[in-house]
Amino acid sequence: MHDQAFYQTRIEALLDSVLPQGNQQPETLYKAMRYSVLGGGKRIRPLLVYATGEALKIPLESLDMPATAIELIHAYSLVHDDLPCMDDDALRRGKATTHIAFDEATAVLTGDALQALAFEILSSPLPGISALNQLKILNILTSNSGINGMVKGQAIDLAAVGLKLENKQLETMHRYKTGALINASVLMATYCTEEVTCDDEPSINRHSPISEKRAKLTDYANAIGLAFQVRDDILDIQSDTETLGKQQGADIAAGKPTYPSILGMEAAKKKLYQLHAKATASLKDFGDEAFLLREIAEFIVKRIA
Amino acid sequence: MHDQAFYQTRIEALLDSVLPQGNQQPETLYKAMRYSVLGGGKRIRPLLVYATGEALKIPLESLDMPATAIELIHAYSLVHDDLPCMDDDALRRGKATTHIAFDEATAVLTGDALQALAFEILSSPLPGISALNQLKILNILTSNSGINGMVKGQAIDLAAVGLKLENKQLETMHRYKTGALINASVLMATYCTEEVTCDDEPSINRHSPISEKRAKLTDYANAIGLAFQVRDDILDIQSDTETLGKQQGADIAAGKPTYPSILGMEAAKKKLYQLHAKATASLKDFGDEAFLLREIAEFIVKRIA
Repeated sequence: MHDQAFYQTRIEALLDSVLPQGNQQPETLYKAMRYSVLGGGKRIRPLLVYATGEALKIPLESLDMPATAIELIHAYSLVHDDLPCMDDDALRRGKATTHIAFDEATAVLTGDALQALAFEILSSPLPGISALNQLKILNILTSNSGINGMVKGQAIDLAAVGLKLENKQLETMHRYKTGALINASVLMATYCTEEVTCDDEPSINRHSPISEKRAKLTDYANAIGLAFQVRDDILDIQSDTETLGKQQGADIAAGKPTYPSILGMEAAKKKLYQLHAKATASLKDFGDEAFLLREIAEFIVKRIA
Repeated sequence: MHDQAFYQTRIEALLDSVLPQGNQQPETLYKAMRYSVLGGGKRIRPLLVYATGEALKIPLESLDMPATAIELIHAYSLVHDDLPCMDDDALRRGKATTHIAFDEATAVLTGDALQALAFEILSSPLPGISALNQLKILNILTSNSGINGMVKGQAIDLAAVGLKLENKQLETMHRYKTGALINASVLMATYCTEEVTCDDEPSINRHSPISEKRAKLTDYANAIGLAFQVRDDILDIQSDTETLGKQQGADIAAGKPTYPSILGMEAAKKKLYQLHAKATASLKDFGDEAFLLREIAEFIVKRIA
């Protein structure tokens, strides 16, 4: 059992080790990749991989590459989302966005390279994970990144600017845009073992201990994924640019629908606490080994940035 | 044994089947993905997958998804390369580029989605391929797409605009930019079997028939990969926009180094025929089963578009 700071230090070192050195050619691309990934971010997704691993007593080493890969995917999505043709943001994690610090062409390539790198490290030999489970992990991350996951959410978001979405449509957008990767973090970790327990192949170990816990962990992931976005929307109104490390009020200014704008601020806060209660309830069959998962749920609803 | 037209029809149907329907939400993204992939292109990379499969007598069905995936990667790279911040091209395969037909944000997302989809279909269960070989196929495609492959070549290209490259530097750029995916097409196909024959794991079947042929096929791929680019550079000067389906003279106008501009036109043509001879020589131990590989090599040096 380790605390968040332990894992944050570990993931930073891992990200550093998989990224190309900035003094090699092509230097600009490699520097931009390091700039876009290192030294910032809450690392929520890697933390969720490790926390789920703790809850299932999976060795740390088996979780390292899935944790690293999902942060690379998250980082690529931020670099592309910030582009002038997308959200046109100049500030991210308290520093200039990649296309400002470098240029647009480099930012496009950086995102492309980070996506490929994420899947490259997951297709290289991984310790303590069977080949079938490794394919499952790859399938979870690829499907949650693409047209049935994060990119789908981003496309719905683009199409929704200036439109009045209803609560349900907003939830659909966020389930894909933010929820998909949060879900993938938890789900990938449940496959970081030698034991093959694919739930979609009923012939294989359907009633193994991990398989039974997977459903509860998925409920947890769904609740905190949505909570994360509700909190983000509240912070966009109530926080300030310096604390956030990105432009406060940017979503409202861009005419984007948010939970407070649709439900009202009080109802949005109520929803946040209901989701937190749901997340902790789904962990009730777990003991102390789910300490970090509970802590992350608490952090998500209370965070100020 | 089948001809090129058979495989071109087959790959078109497969691409159609893995792409999302254009009448579903988010409609714009899905339409843009189909627009960017379907109804055009020489399908050289899928053809190479099938032709290599023929040379190794691998069943057609085992080659389908690797052939489809590599064309999705190629299509994503074209969409991003054509962006205003990159090559700023308006015409591709005889029609408007994706960011012109739709918009820049959609073009960025389309490329991102196509990359994720390529790896998603390769991580789903594949017929006739062992899990270890499937991971190897994924590793070949991811590594040849990213910072040690296509994206690296693109980054060197971006950095080289307006500079005077030497022959060797030009070759390095193309080995990554075009050569990596052509190499991957051939190499992936050699792993489309149940038999595990990883050359980088000496303990496993080092002297199996496939493993011995892999080195020859890699020589073939290296030669035609470079030949493809030399021919491209010659066509950029000698062809016309209508035949090419893209702007003639675009590379020269952009100040990009090309083989004719560095070696002179006659020496560039000589190089092309030397590479063709090298490609066919590497197939000398193969019989009629390498007919299509030989035909593709011939097509690459003689093509007019």
